[in-house]
Amino acid sequence: VGEVKAQISVSADGFVAGPNQSEEHGLGEGGEALHEWAYKLRAFQEMHGREGGEENASTPILEEANKNVGAILMGRNMFGPVRGDWGDGSWRGWWGDEPPFHVPVFVLTHYPRDTLEMEGGTSFHFVTEGLQHGLELARDAAGEKDVAIGGGAQTIQQCLRGGHVDELLLNQVPLFLGGGERLFQDIPPEVELEQVEVIGAPGVAHLRYRVRA
Amino acid sequence: VGEVKAQISVSADGFVAGPNQSEEHGLGEGGEALHEWAYKLRAFQEMHGREGGEENASTPILEEANKNVGAILMGRNMFGPVRGDWGDGSWRGWWGDEPPFHVPVFVLTHYPRDTLEMEGGTSFHFVTEGLQHGLELARDAAGEKDVAIGGGAQTIQQCLRGGHVDELLLNQVPLFLGGGERLFQDIPPEVELEQVEVIGAPGVAHLRYRVRA
Repeated sequence: VGEVKAQISVSADGFVAGPNQSEEHGLGEGGEALHEWAYKLRAFQEMHGREGGEENASTPILEEANKNVGAILMGRNMFGPVRGDWGDGSWRGWWGDEPPFHVPVFVLTHYPRDTLEMEGGTSFHFVTEGLQHGLELARDAAGEKDVAIGGGAQTIQQCLRGGHVDELLLNQVPLFLGGGERLFQDIPPEVELEQVEVIGAPGVAHLRYRVRA
Repeated sequence: VGEVKAQISVSADGFVAGPNQSEEHGLGEGGEALHEWAYKLRAFQEMHGREGGEENASTPILEEANKNVGAILMGRNMFGPVRGDWGDGSWRGWWGDEPPFHVPVFVLTHYPRDTLEMEGGTSFHFVTEGLQHGLELARDAAGEKDVAIGGGAQTIQQCLRGGHVDELLLNQVPLFLGGGERLFQDIPPEVELEQVEVIGAPGVAHLRYRVRA
């Protein structure tokens, strides 16, 4: 069976989104800069059906991270800025009609909603029975492949505390956001990391860990 | 003239000391583990007049960090656990009669105290006129050499915010402390980092940045 892998871009001061997140600024003020290293890659542009971009030391990291993913688990704040119930259901994610996932995505929420079938093989499933159940559904959907934890910070924290993560990839970006959504909060020392790879690339450092809890 | 360099060991969750710092546990609960990567190096043991230890990818990092240091600036919490005035003056630092610095050390404090001349060329000077003045004294003492910011977190933060740091070396250790003294707090995005070196070594990742503010 596959593994559970989390990967996320984080600022030098430990934030995965800047202050004042909104529908207009989904990553908060300054947060877009956390993903510049990926945007400029040809591998990223291809994933999004576009041309251009470069190859550098981040290319194999990005390709490896997306290679064997059979399902994705994410928190609802990662899916969108809507809070509370889903209203008229017009919010269908940040990613347009054809999201770049191409696998089932399980969104943790307290508010039930029918599954959204998107173009290109992505489907959004809304899980109201909690993290454990969401992980089970994602594992089943992934089969022999891996489950990727898509974020955000709270979902990654929950998964780490629960001992559900096998591999953690931090893409650490050389900038200070000064505030926003903190990646690691109250992670107990019992969650152990083994550093397995450290790669410097343009505008980012990739730190890969095995996780034991 | 020399530069101002800060280097510090930090946990994956961004702490430079664990919770509940005390005279017995100067680095807080679990904090000693942040320095294991250095303790096991021959270069570190030699600095402290001892034998043994290994060589690995951290060796040139540690040697480089200590090579051209002409003076050190540190906060008083780094000098010791004493708070308030200096009492009977019996506290002479964490490092015994012959501290491993061998250069003048300027300790920022609100409480005046006479200079301590230690063995091996280390002297502790107590600066009550604030960070700027402490930096000036350290620069003067360093001459052509560099000033090292010894820590702790608050002193590094002050120096970053004030635009006083030329180079920042993070020794990022794969463990969670879960709480304690946070390295980066309220560092504004105007403090810019340029990643210049990323080195993976046993039990640590070295991330070197140039700083502009």
